[in-house]
Amino acid sequence: MQPLPDLSRLSLNQATTQGWGVREAVEGCARAGIPWIGLWRDKIAAAGVAESARLARDAGLKVSSLCRGGYFPAATKAEREARIEDNRRAIDEAAELGTDVLVLVCGPAPGRDIDGARRMVEEGIAAIIPYAAERGVRLGIEPLHPIFAGDRSVIVTLGQANAIAERLASPQVGVVIDVYHVWWDPVVYQEIARAAPYTLGFHVNDWLAPPPHPLLGRGMMGDGTIELRRLRAAVDAAGYRGPIEVEIFNQAIWDAPGDETLALMKERYREYV
Amino acid sequence: MQPLPDLSRLSLNQATTQGWGVREAVEGCARAGIPWIGLWRDKIAAAGVAESARLARDAGLKVSSLCRGGYFPAATKAEREARIEDNRRAIDEAAELGTDVLVLVCGPAPGRDIDGARRMVEEGIAAIIPYAAERGVRLGIEPLHPIFAGDRSVIVTLGQANAIAERLASPQVGVVIDVYHVWWDPVVYQEIARAAPYTLGFHVNDWLAPPPHPLLGRGMMGDGTIELRRLRAAVDAAGYRGPIEVEIFNQAIWDAPGDETLALMKERYREYV
Repeated sequence: MQPLPDLSRLSLNQATTQGWGVREAVEGCARAGIPWIGLWRDKIAAAGVAESARLARDAGLKVSSLCRGGYFPAATKAEREARIEDNRRAIDEAAELGTDVLVLVCGPAPGRDIDGARRMVEEGIAAIIPYAAERGVRLGIEPLHPIFAGDRSVIVTLGQANAIAERLASPQVGVVIDVYHVWWDPVVYQEIARAAPYTLGFHVNDWLAPPPHPLLGRGMMGDGTIELRRLRAAVDAAGYRGPIEVEIFNQAIWDAPGDETLALMKERYREYV
Repeated sequence: MQPLPDLSRLSLNQATTQGWGVREAVEGCARAGIPWIGLWRDKIAAAGVAESARLARDAGLKVSSLCRGGYFPAATKAEREARIEDNRRAIDEAAELGTDVLVLVCGPAPGRDIDGARRMVEEGIAAIIPYAAERGVRLGIEPLHPIFAGDRSVIVTLGQANAIAERLASPQVGVVIDVYHVWWDPVVYQEIARAAPYTLGFHVNDWLAPPPHPLLGRGMMGDGTIELRRLRAAVDAAGYRGPIEVEIFNQAIWDAPGDETLALMKERYREYV
């Protein structure tokens, strides 16, 4: 398994530099020679969508994805429709930012009925396909680690995400694979191969053991237990050639100066991804 | 799905009452009318194995299981053999305590090679089968939630545990199902049915959302997101009629007086399990 030849696929997912707004993140990437950026809705709301698009374009950056749509399950029909409408706004934003990938974090169950919530997720994605097609945006279902099954996503395996993508069978629908969320799965390599026709994104970071925090415990590549290169090679072998986002939720990394984080990220990307 | 008719299957897993030694836990169960107890090796080491067995017997309690054997993967052959030897001692202890179930927490990988560690788990279990048969003890593979994949168990799904049990095909080997570890799994009901011939134990508690702590975030039944009765009914429908252990790692519950915890446990068992 060879290292990547250069940084041409490297993307900074904004979640890694929480202290930075869109302008600082874009300027940081430009200084560091990182060609891609993954943006978040709260950050582009603060900076303005048009202004965020202009900042990235002027700096010569490509936008790898927008995080995040999703959160489909809700207790009432009215609330589910409001969520669907919000996803249409996220699709608009992705289109305006010039990315064709909207990452979907599917959401938790409103009560204890996890299977019912899974059906709501699939219905919600189906409902936004026509609008996504109109705007030229693809929907990347991101299965989350089962630690988030109760509060963030009832879709917790790549196998589930693949099954939804296959049932919906739309060119608008695919999956986003984040090593943190899938590394533990005994069938992850089969599911990566299965996702070949519709893999829309690949995220890297690491799993710290023991996990220091339920949400903010992600590590920098190389600091944890994940076979990063093996997973990246598998995603590549399946045919994925797109950007590789570094997405790390970790308070210590957020507290570090952004330029140092980007420098470390590049070094670890070369060494471990 | 009907509630359980009485408390005849209820067991206190000692992990729920960390402040109590074996004597206190046995006396607590006797006072509360809880007929079963699940013991831990550190607690019986402190009390003495023979003395622990005597305490339970004199109080009229049945021992549902001993926690825990396992931790098979290690970097060197010598260390793996030492772990196997330690599992034989755990089998001795289970036999002396009068329980025929040793719960196996399979252990993490010594490095990043998770598939290699999974093979070490299977080899380790295979190695102790003859000794377990000699002592009349069964080995219950307990898959842990994927949050523990890096530091406690490379066996993270009931499907994996079932596959090992089926490959080893020994009357000594089965699985232990803990709702906390399996509730998120999209195929959990199929795997519960598959485990019917060799389900050796069933543990209940709840999943708090969001998880307050990576290890000590388990909740009392009814306080979280798990469909407890549906899971218990599925395990029963598969033919399991054995004890149901309440196992909760939670600092707030540990800080509460043990008798209050047992009273609450009984109430919630009747209402939710």
